Amino acid sequence: MGKPLILITNDDGFNAPGIKNLTEFVRDLGDICIVAPERPQSAMGHAVTISSPLRLKKLTESESFTEYTCSGTPADAVKLALDKVVPRRPDIILSGINHGANSSVNVIYSGTMSAAIEGSMSGITAIGFSLLNFSHDANFLPARKYIRSIVLSTLNSVELSGKCLNVNIPDVREDEIRGIKICRQAKANWEEEFDERLDPHNNKYYWLKGVFKNKDNGKDTDEYALSQNYISIVPITIDFTEHSTKEILNTINFNV
Amino acid sequence: MGKPLILITNDDGFNAPGIKNLTEFVRDLGDICIVAPERPQSAMGHAVTISSPLRLKKLTESESFTEYTCSGTPADAVKLALDKVVPRRPDIILSGINHGANSSVNVIYSGTMSAAIEGSMSGITAIGFSLLNFSHDANFLPARKYIRSIVLSTLNSVELSGKCLNVNIPDVREDEIRGIKICRQAKANWEEEFDERLDPHNNKYYWLKGVFKNKDNGKDTDEYALSQNYISIVPITIDFTEHSTKEILNTINFNV
Repeated sequence: MGKPLILITNDDGFNAPGIKNLTEFVRDLGDICIVAPERPQSAMGHAVTISSPLRLKKLTESESFTEYTCSGTPADAVKLALDKVVPRRPDIILSGINHGANSSVNVIYSGTMSAAIEGSMSGITAIGFSLLNFSHDANFLPARKYIRSIVLSTLNSVELSGKCLNVNIPDVREDEIRGIKICRQAKANWEEEFDERLDPHNNKYYWLKGVFKNKDNGKDTDEYALSQNYISIVPITIDFTEHSTKEILNTINFNV
Repeated sequence: MGKPLILITNDDGFNAPGIKNLTEFVRDLGDICIVAPERPQSAMGHAVTISSPLRLKKLTESESFTEYTCSGTPADAVKLALDKVVPRRPDIILSGINHGANSSVNVIYSGTMSAAIEGSMSGITAIGFSLLNFSHDANFLPARKYIRSIVLSTLNSVELSGKCLNVNIPDVREDEIRGIKICRQAKANWEEEFDERLDPHNNKYYWLKGVFKNKDNGKDTDEYALSQNYISIVPITIDFTEHSTKEILNTINFNV
């Protein structure tokens, strides 16, 4: 068996320290193919580009290490990589390391996770990594051995084939990380408060500035694990059906 | 008790026939507040605008009927409406009617559904409506009585409070619609095939043109119901945790 092919992308753009660190962490675990957005794409959710064409730009190409940038969103990057760039079907797709949390409901807004979800939709095992620190100078090194372990364990597990994992990493020193916890997504939301301003022509405009509210006391949640300095892993489904609500709906007479 | 407040948005833009029809269909069921994107936002997924400010534009304002446009995405429109526009908490959020299907995995890419999901994240009951016809001249009228029935039944159900529904409507004559089916999301994916072209400067560019592949033979799926000329309702969760995979992950020794 040859080396595994690892496709890497992110939403902060190809030049972000997060993807540079991730690539360095897994460099020796397989052949590496990077297709990352040329510009930051945070909060893009699962957007795809349908009304304008996409561009690819080759930065490096060798047998074991290829790097492209792509003009679109993280989901575009995965689609384009799978159709036009990879020499064979990737064994795993890694997205990140995101500069900032994608725990709890943030998975819904996350460009990082949209790339992983896109991979999983094509049946390819995928992991999104996020560090709870938004800054450019965040320290990714404490996560190194955990990320390597998660990638290797996932590659080696037949049962995890095609699954999608959302991994969040607390922003603490390496000796403060207490381990890895398997979690469910915490129930939370953003309470929005737009900052209303006036432009020089006296017209109003609004900046989004929500406040994250965790409404879940469960000790099995990602938010709880992260608060206790654990790395959280939440497996993510691409079946959005809320099966319990089907039963409620079936009791309703729509009376048409 | 006063009239219910119905917040309406979409992803095709305020001027699309789909939202005009939806508004007309439910006009007498409550007070109406429309906050819709000023420009089409298809395939935006759950994108939100964080790096540029948003604008609101008032088109109409009266006690029972208010209409604004918003410069952002469908998720932005809901956030901004809830914080800056609505006179009280909406009783329901309606999104659509989308020009084109949002059945199966399309829910993941859908701007229409992102608006409904955003509402549900704030605890407000929300329904996204989509007609299986992409054209501007699509005929929304056959869906009229079904949409009214679904909105009324949902407003009247305590158990459906805060839930999110994905409603898809077959593109057939009214006498061909066989009723409403409660479904699960079909397992399907898009097989991407980018159209590769050369620009006048001999540089490659790519148009996304995927082919939708339904891989699910289940008769309880939205795809099956729609193929049989039923209107499909899939309840949508905002908890993306794949609980069954937590058990697999708990058996893995990460060996850090």
